[in-house]
Amino acid sequence: MFRIPETHPRYKSLLKREKIVAGIEAGITSRQGLIAHGRGEAFDYLIGERTLPAALRATEAAAALLLTAQKPVISVNGNVAALVTERVIELSELIGAPLEVNIFYWTEARVMKIKEHLEQHGATNVLGDKADARIPGIEHARARVDKDGIYTADVVLAPLEDGDRCEALIAMGKKVVTIDLNPVSRTSKYATVSIVDDIERALENLILMIKEKKKGEVKLLEDYDNKENLQAVINEIMERLKNEALR
Amino acid sequence: MFRIPETHPRYKSLLKREKIVAGIEAGITSRQGLIAHGRGEAFDYLIGERTLPAALRATEAAAALLLTAQKPVISVNGNVAALVTERVIELSELIGAPLEVNIFYWTEARVMKIKEHLEQHGATNVLGDKADARIPGIEHARARVDKDGIYTADVVLAPLEDGDRCEALIAMGKKVVTIDLNPVSRTSKYATVSIVDDIERALENLILMIKEKKKGEVKLLEDYDNKENLQAVINEIMERLKNEALR
Repeated sequence: MFRIPETHPRYKSLLKREKIVAGIEAGITSRQGLIAHGRGEAFDYLIGERTLPAALRATEAAAALLLTAQKPVISVNGNVAALVTERVIELSELIGAPLEVNIFYWTEARVMKIKEHLEQHGATNVLGDKADARIPGIEHARARVDKDGIYTADVVLAPLEDGDRCEALIAMGKKVVTIDLNPVSRTSKYATVSIVDDIERALENLILMIKEKKKGEVKLLEDYDNKENLQAVINEIMERLKNEALR
Repeated sequence: MFRIPETHPRYKSLLKREKIVAGIEAGITSRQGLIAHGRGEAFDYLIGERTLPAALRATEAAAALLLTAQKPVISVNGNVAALVTERVIELSELIGAPLEVNIFYWTEARVMKIKEHLEQHGATNVLGDKADARIPGIEHARARVDKDGIYTADVVLAPLEDGDRCEALIAMGKKVVTIDLNPVSRTSKYATVSIVDDIERALENLILMIKEKKKGEVKLLEDYDNKENLQAVINEIMERLKNEALR
């Protein structure tokens, strides 16, 4: 790793980059995943690198949806595995949902690397290496899933997901929870519940809320409106841009 | 390279990613450079992946500034070398300015790789391997420049530059032209002329404008206001977000 000077004004953001770059060394993160991370960084900058009230609301809706699911599955790609290893494993145990390795730039070697990485950190239920089913309506190489996992899940938590696949999962009748910093991405638009937040912050909040909800009776948030919630994020970005000091 | 399915809605953007990923294979682009590219992608998406009128105006101001400079220098980092090799070389010849390899994550090996890459593509005046001077006011490792290059230049074209270094060059009394897709970045705010555009589109326009201006007498754009120009870009982004259809 490079030593980032602590005097650099974007020190924290640069340190976070190092974490995902390390994912490359481990054979977990794809190079295209680094670019995708950069896209996220830009949107995080626009929302002020903090959890917006709208994101908290979406996280609460997601917690209820995951807890009332018959068969929830957590989709894990290279960036998720590199950035939030411990947190996805904790979440998996907490809601009794398997982790399914599901990557956009698919190679068997990388799937196995990610599976091993998760297991080395304590995960006990990792799918994705069978790839014995296909999501209908999307191009072959991107469609691979496990029959016992995402293919038959009713609720899928798919952080940092591709828009095409999100749309196809919805078309299969599934409910999809995404975590994506871009409020106008196709993923955010298609998902049932779109958490527009940094993945570390979002999973931390999600875990806290699930722990809290498990103490009582869990009910879906009937009045939650995902479009309205995304609009609130967009409004916040516009407000921040309006106040941007250019002198 | 991975084969991107042509049916993917973001086909063009994904292809562009492949180009910069290839820069890694060649030892030219840094991994952190990939993340920076992703940040740019996000802002390009927000401005509609096209050259805004404000960007054209900044490009014209930049053309005049570079043509009237006593000693212009073009700063080249890993992403610039990977994305627009031929164009920076053409620009260098056109205005008689050296290219100076100037990278954020500095290693001598990568400086030499980039220099060789540029020379293999026909560049005849490439600096940056001496690194015998320092930009005052910034941390040692980031401060390296050539005494005969950026250190004594009056106008520096520094595309995709770090905010800290842009500020330090301005503090040295230089005029700095940047190409940066983020209109609210520190780089865009500090620069003398900030071209908020994709680097390929911006250099293409800059070369055309310089060729045109060279036919007559070159005058600086006296009424060009960089802050006002950046504000126009921000307004355009807000307008686009306002019209974003969320259904």
